[in-house]
Amino acid sequence: MKKIEHLTPKQIRSLIRKGKWDKPTAGLAMGYAQANLVILPQKNAFDFLLFCQRNPKPCPLLEVLEPGEFRTKFLSSDADIRTDIPRYHIYQKGKLQKTVKDIETSWKSDFVSFLLGCSFSFEEALLRANIPVRHIEEEKNVPMFITRIPCTPAGIFHGPMVVTMRPLPSDQVTRAVQITSRYASVHGAPIHIDRPSVIGIKDLGKPDFGDPVTIKNGEVPVFWACGVTPQAVVVKARPDLCITHAPGHMFISDLLNEELAVL
Amino acid sequence: MKKIEHLTPKQIRSLIRKGKWDKPTAGLAMGYAQANLVILPQKNAFDFLLFCQRNPKPCPLLEVLEPGEFRTKFLSSDADIRTDIPRYHIYQKGKLQKTVKDIETSWKSDFVSFLLGCSFSFEEALLRANIPVRHIEEEKNVPMFITRIPCTPAGIFHGPMVVTMRPLPSDQVTRAVQITSRYASVHGAPIHIDRPSVIGIKDLGKPDFGDPVTIKNGEVPVFWACGVTPQAVVVKARPDLCITHAPGHMFISDLLNEELAVL
Repeated sequence: MKKIEHLTPKQIRSLIRKGKWDKPTAGLAMGYAQANLVILPQKNAFDFLLFCQRNPKPCPLLEVLEPGEFRTKFLSSDADIRTDIPRYHIYQKGKLQKTVKDIETSWKSDFVSFLLGCSFSFEEALLRANIPVRHIEEEKNVPMFITRIPCTPAGIFHGPMVVTMRPLPSDQVTRAVQITSRYASVHGAPIHIDRPSVIGIKDLGKPDFGDPVTIKNGEVPVFWACGVTPQAVVVKARPDLCITHAPGHMFISDLLNEELAVL
Repeated sequence: MKKIEHLTPKQIRSLIRKGKWDKPTAGLAMGYAQANLVILPQKNAFDFLLFCQRNPKPCPLLEVLEPGEFRTKFLSSDADIRTDIPRYHIYQKGKLQKTVKDIETSWKSDFVSFLLGCSFSFEEALLRANIPVRHIEEEKNVPMFITRIPCTPAGIFHGPMVVTMRPLPSDQVTRAVQITSRYASVHGAPIHIDRPSVIGIKDLGKPDFGDPVTIKNGEVPVFWACGVTPQAVVVKARPDLCITHAPGHMFISDLLNEELAVL
């Protein structure tokens, strides 16, 4: 068998579906967009769709499935979101109940599935332009911080924006803004540059999630809206039921990152 | 009193609210974004929001209000969408019942209001770049065509995409693509360039809506997704009730077109 890194999205999803891959998906199917998953009962779906519309930077919708639908159309023509993600988290009233490898038996006909863009897509674009991505260099998880920037609420959903931080040499900040601006559907341009205290971040060495990374002399911390935001907001709203992908265990689509870019 | 062309969006909305302006809004509050309005009962709102998410080029959402809410937050902090549009169309089961100057007495607590971007915004950007906009030069309504490009359906909403056509000198087509790409929230880049028959348009001289315009020797027809698409789709789905702005009688926001631009 080929090394999994060299398989196509379809081949990898097939392995995942058969239970042969239940680990994180970073580094797999390079060039293809990966997506976050949030599943909610239909009664909460309008509010959450509205929340995403009002907060496109932390919540960039790639595809929303009809109530009860578990097959994607846009991101892939042959995927089943009940089985094609390595690990799922099932929440009841905002509490994590269990982690499972498929959700076929938990599936209900009123479930609405939301697939959201992921920063893997723009990180690949940064690397291609020779802009360093520190947590990848250091083989860590990206550092994430809860800011004091409020999301625009919608129905039961509200909360602060979570951001990721990537330190950059100051002469590469402008280029990083330009490059990530092309990827509006995967968090897009930075929401803040430098001066972490302005957005309520006290200590860059102590992220709220993920790992701290080295900030070299003269480097500027640059902040992007993070896909943890919708998950944190959904859990906080305590809907009766919510299913998400387990962190890092993403949906691998058939769409090239380049197909998501504008200009 | 100042000429209406020189008033601010707030001053113009105030005149409209008092019933002192009930004509089209083209040319008013230059530089500020104008918006299309679609109001639906809550039971149809999720489907329509999903339709817009799936068809962002013809249906670029600028703001969606909470059920029952009639005050905008993002587009203006002091507007009332029940009174601040010059003329409204009220449809029942897809049939136009009447045209009115305000909808205060028709308002229901389950109404969800959708405000969508309008091509006035990118036309201003084209003119600023010395790119001709023929229907403005000829003081006509933009020519619109029903294409054979299907929208992606959502729930009860489906139908073909409607496009606007602007003829351009061939050496300005690339520049027009670049400029309008910046305005993704107001229809964005062209959906088709030249060769009208490919998208099902038989005769550029016979638009389905609006007026025919002159196409000079060597000019290329360029097609953009049109805000008539959501209205046509909504009317076709025959919801119990639907209220829209009357064509050309738009909502004038406090947001500069330039604030909608990316890059």
